Amino acid sequence: MNRIKCIVCYDGTAFAGYQIQPNGRTIQGCIEKALKMIHKGQDVKVFASGRTDAGVHAVGQVLHFDSPLRIPPHKWPNAINGLLPRDIRIKECEIVDSSFHARFSASGKEYRYKVHTSAFQDPFRRNFSYHYPYKLDMKWMEEAAKNLIGTHDFTSFCSAKTDVEDKVRTIEQISIHSSQDELEFHFIGNGFLYNMVRILTGSLLDIGSGKISPNEIKRILEAKNRSMAGKTAPAAGLYLWRVFYDN
Amino acid sequence: MNRIKCIVCYDGTAFAGYQIQPNGRTIQGCIEKALKMIHKGQDVKVFASGRTDAGVHAVGQVLHFDSPLRIPPHKWPNAINGLLPRDIRIKECEIVDSSFHARFSASGKEYRYKVHTSAFQDPFRRNFSYHYPYKLDMKWMEEAAKNLIGTHDFTSFCSAKTDVEDKVRTIEQISIHSSQDELEFHFIGNGFLYNMVRILTGSLLDIGSGKISPNEIKRILEAKNRSMAGKTAPAAGLYLWRVFYDN
Repeated sequence: MNRIKCIVCYDGTAFAGYQIQPNGRTIQGCIEKALKMIHKGQDVKVFASGRTDAGVHAVGQVLHFDSPLRIPPHKWPNAINGLLPRDIRIKECEIVDSSFHARFSASGKEYRYKVHTSAFQDPFRRNFSYHYPYKLDMKWMEEAAKNLIGTHDFTSFCSAKTDVEDKVRTIEQISIHSSQDELEFHFIGNGFLYNMVRILTGSLLDIGSGKISPNEIKRILEAKNRSMAGKTAPAAGLYLWRVFYDN
Repeated sequence: MNRIKCIVCYDGTAFAGYQIQPNGRTIQGCIEKALKMIHKGQDVKVFASGRTDAGVHAVGQVLHFDSPLRIPPHKWPNAINGLLPRDIRIKECEIVDSSFHARFSASGKEYRYKVHTSAFQDPFRRNFSYHYPYKLDMKWMEEAAKNLIGTHDFTSFCSAKTDVEDKVRTIEQISIHSSQDELEFHFIGNGFLYNMVRILTGSLLDIGSGKISPNEIKRILEAKNRSMAGKTAPAAGLYLWRVFYDN
């Protein structure tokens, strides 16, 4: 058996999310269906670094699967892509040690969140960026971002719909990039809770638009109460950008 | 009655084209439905500068309609947009003289065609740009473009599926812009025949990739034979960018 690690890119717009479900088009469902065809009807289970919700995109999702087939790694992407819909593409494959696990070996992730602030609701950006037509103060958002970096209990920035008990995570980097009417928030951390990036972004936007003061962040973290933070920003602006593995 | 001129933007991906049809989601159908609601059930016919095919986008389509309602022009876009799906947006409205006609008053149009040449089939560009993963020679395409500018019989660059008899048109400008792995062809002319921009682009790509020699263009024009020109480039890369009116 070979363990194959894949880097996968998808436009999440037309998917009910990453994880397979009985009714609904999912990324996992499409990839497992393609692999089943390649393996002549045999089921092949795919393991991802984590789920993404309906409408969330990925530029560098990572997954792995095991296969008895002796296909050279550089030929795997075309073999799978030929059987996938055009909104999912395998970018790269490599054969890895059988100890590698897309989820459990991950040491960190980068998410990006895209926002556009133009007055006009651009139809071409509606599925790929959050339309937030308000004036934003970069300094306030950057100041607040500094207070989020580090190791904290992120209960206030996690959806109540989660079973995870330990809500302590480390954010290594938050940077905010703006050009013309577009903003991009980059988040790098050792792990992110359910909806955490979307709630962080929603809160930073509330700070940028003056609804929350930048130095409220510390109190919001300490409160460990979801209702203290800002709204969950919509799925369409979110991209799983990269997954990090040691070595 | 007021005649209202509108500038309209749409992502053509999920439409069966501009023109209304009994089965199939169309831009005209969506806009006329919205106007009918605003006019309390009364039919309002909309006239566009021209049709666009299924999958073709518009950044600056122009249309007009007549209304007895006394809505100030700057309030029309929100009134209509509130009743439109998010893949169509009215950008601007103005009240014009009753002699204005979106189609017959037009003096010219600009179309743009987007191409990307990366080896990777980017899922995020699949509906918005033509994936053409070949090396392109800019000089050859620019030389050929020069030979297309001017007043010619464009029979060789027009789909056979047309009733138009006079196939003489004037192309005022063709410019080709490249950055990283993206190319944009800009076409300005007094009018374009059915599929003309897509056949011109397909032919320029054949020239850029060396399938047709740049100085073949003159012979292709003279032949007045569709089969002499290149392939019709796909709908997804095409944008109706602007419509020009004198004054």
